[in-house]
Amino acid sequence: MTERLVVIGGDAAGMSAASQARRRRGPDDLEIVAFERGHFTSYSACGIPYWVGGLIDNQADLISRDPETFRTEHHIDVRLRHEVVAIDLDRREVVARAWDDGGREVRERFDQLVYAAGAVPITPDWARTDTAGIFGVQTLDDGASLLAWLEGEPRPRRAVVIGGGYIGVEMAEALIQRGLSVTLVERSPEPMSTVDPDMGALVRQALCGLGLDVRSGVTVTGLESRDGRVAAVHTDEGSLPADIVVLGLGVRPNTKLAAEAGLPLGLTGAIRVDLGMRVVGVPGVWAAGDCVESVHLVSGQMVHIPLGTHANKQGRVAGINIGGGYATFTGVVGTAVTRVCNLEVGRTGLRERDATAAGFEFVTAKVESTSRAGYFPGAEKMTVKLVAERHTGRLLGAQIVGRSEAAKRIDVLAVAVWNKMTVAEMANLDLGYAPPYSPVWDPVLVAARRAAAAVR
Amino acid sequence: MTERLVVIGGDAAGMSAASQARRRRGPDDLEIVAFERGHFTSYSACGIPYWVGGLIDNQADLISRDPETFRTEHHIDVRLRHEVVAIDLDRREVVARAWDDGGREVRERFDQLVYAAGAVPITPDWARTDTAGIFGVQTLDDGASLLAWLEGEPRPRRAVVIGGGYIGVEMAEALIQRGLSVTLVERSPEPMSTVDPDMGALVRQALCGLGLDVRSGVTVTGLESRDGRVAAVHTDEGSLPADIVVLGLGVRPNTKLAAEAGLPLGLTGAIRVDLGMRVVGVPGVWAAGDCVESVHLVSGQMVHIPLGTHANKQGRVAGINIGGGYATFTGVVGTAVTRVCNLEVGRTGLRERDATAAGFEFVTAKVESTSRAGYFPGAEKMTVKLVAERHTGRLLGAQIVGRSEAAKRIDVLAVAVWNKMTVAEMANLDLGYAPPYSPVWDPVLVAARRAAAAVR
Repeated sequence: MTERLVVIGGDAAGMSAASQARRRRGPDDLEIVAFERGHFTSYSACGIPYWVGGLIDNQADLISRDPETFRTEHHIDVRLRHEVVAIDLDRREVVARAWDDGGREVRERFDQLVYAAGAVPITPDWARTDTAGIFGVQTLDDGASLLAWLEGEPRPRRAVVIGGGYIGVEMAEALIQRGLSVTLVERSPEPMSTVDPDMGALVRQALCGLGLDVRSGVTVTGLESRDGRVAAVHTDEGSLPADIVVLGLGVRPNTKLAAEAGLPLGLTGAIRVDLGMRVVGVPGVWAAGDCVESVHLVSGQMVHIPLGTHANKQGRVAGINIGGGYATFTGVVGTAVTRVCNLEVGRTGLRERDATAAGFEFVTAKVESTSRAGYFPGAEKMTVKLVAERHTGRLLGAQIVGRSEAAKRIDVLAVAVWNKMTVAEMANLDLGYAPPYSPVWDPVLVAARRAAAAVR
Repeated sequence: MTERLVVIGGDAAGMSAASQARRRRGPDDLEIVAFERGHFTSYSACGIPYWVGGLIDNQADLISRDPETFRTEHHIDVRLRHEVVAIDLDRREVVARAWDDGGREVRERFDQLVYAAGAVPITPDWARTDTAGIFGVQTLDDGASLLAWLEGEPRPRRAVVIGGGYIGVEMAEALIQRGLSVTLVERSPEPMSTVDPDMGALVRQALCGLGLDVRSGVTVTGLESRDGRVAAVHTDEGSLPADIVVLGLGVRPNTKLAAEAGLPLGLTGAIRVDLGMRVVGVPGVWAAGDCVESVHLVSGQMVHIPLGTHANKQGRVAGINIGGGYATFTGVVGTAVTRVCNLEVGRTGLRERDATAAGFEFVTAKVESTSRAGYFPGAEKMTVKLVAERHTGRLLGAQIVGRSEAAKRIDVLAVAVWNKMTVAEMANLDLGYAPPYSPVWDPVLVAARRAAAAVR
């Protein structure tokens, strides 16, 4: 008898699961229905700042596979603008609203269910308003609305970006590229609190060099509107005029439906899954992407790290298993990279505060080196910081800030963290050397040497 | 009593050893004398092609530390143009010739000896001639002579580069940049035989696109001269006119003195050392750099891989140990990178032929991906090839060819090889993702997935 797979959420995790299941089981063996509340499938939300900034011309460029392709080539019944509003585990069905059909109720039976509802922006009370000119940056629809506002009348000139994480700094840069005067407000002492404050300070300097007004250590207290349009952002250090406000305060797992249906949530607030992406204790139900928690392979703690790269991997794992194959998602080490004002920022593993929270004693080492041989054209300064366990010398985390060829060097350190290497062993690593690519001692090796000396 | 350290060879390995020993032991405890037969210390031979090509203006840029710095800041008695001609292990002394003093004989007693005589170019019988216009590319003196020839009269117009390895292709490009018409002759079926032929073919296409005449599968049989100047290169497929000939046929360890003194040589022809860079069985004698052999951590065989990055590490290890510290050089995985005509080439671990020679059964996987998210400006094609052990899936080797941001991605694979990772585990690696740096599935991950499927 034909089984039926229902997928909630048509972005990276959900559609990866659907595609992988389909690769292994044909339409006669497995029907697949995917509900997506928005207008698009499988898009790159990470690309939105570059679209807003004008580096990428078309919204369509950000869509990796459209619904029609899924329908015709993969025989996946994708239903856009369908919002799932309830999961009935006893009756094995989901209830959805078809928003292009007046909110008509649709019920769909499932044998297997993939919950891939993603994340929702964190929205403080003061941001819960119908004032116009306030934007999140999570969906392509968000991006389109924001662009329309930027091009509308009266033409906005002053932007306030609230939150100095990846999305915040990327959006601040994008708005500067569009000619706006931009203020970035961040509660922490330095922007980009995904790295330690000493490294975040390097980012702040770069942002300021760009003409951006960075207000760190500042808390937003409210918004002011005029004629229904946003007019100012109030903070504990005064008021900032604003014709447009962008919220980059992070996201939380979208688990409302999951919780109502009784799926287990962890301490992070995200869904608990096993290595195969099965929801723990709920047979036939899988979850993947920004709504699940993962184990951090260094701290041993559960973490919620909403990133497209994990969502894709997790969706793929779920789909392979649903398809009768075998795959596992074994955990994360917290790698992330971004580009801000031609500054490249990478991180992996634990920051100092994470290492402390996890119970590690540690040493740090920070070195300045160059991306290429010092004499080679285009050589740029690069700062590498390592965090290593005291006594054992195990690499716990790393951060890199540099002008070029910096961010992806974090991958070398991510693989070292993954493999529990010590900094002493790392100093011997056989990394590629040629003058256009590296000094004869790669910055990673210089940092490892310094850290090894600190451990002893 | 003050000990005396004598160093033979003033380049990367020798001077790293001397510096590290000095850091740990002051001049009252350890005298250090370093003999260098050339005019320079601690220079970047790898930078010569870029100097010839005009990317780097000054010879001085290629010198990382000059003799005067070693003398005054490090209290190391550097003696340039002194060629050591004998080592007397019984009397614990070396004999050198001072070439700037008419070849006067100098004898120097040692307690500790570091043998860092480097490598010498492989020179076939037909190249042993005093015909003018034939150049190696090993020392800064070689580079200066070559540049003088290029700028002399009659002005050379046609170059033949013999040997299609790193130095050969880099020099071919440099000569094209200087406006010469260049033919590259390589005996193997494809140039760049440090990668598998299918990847070498990509390099050949790039070289040809540059207007270079690539003759692969061709053997040189002799040279022709006219009035004492080189005039043509004879091959088994005809004669090639040449006003300048560059030899890039590789190097062999410079072990003449070592062999005469009875230091042990391995099957590779290079000196055998232990993990601390002590010459095996010869107390008080150390060796490092292009004259020693190392264990390959994948094949388990001894290999001779003359690279500045190893020389620096090995010299440092010897120096730390001489200084009373503890350090080891544990082996290599065969990582190398180069840039050819804006093509980036990286390799690590074993090629197919190496894997066969080492006794491995293996599968391969080759994928095409892009350096950045496909929609992001500047995204370039990249080809990644993996070699993995059959059954176990252990990564044995990897090769990358791409237009940008390709070569240093090999480091990720080098660390994976070092840690004996399986391709299945690698597919889960937490690598950095952001649109300016990578597709959501990094090319390395795509290749690992493909290889994992091939292993099963």
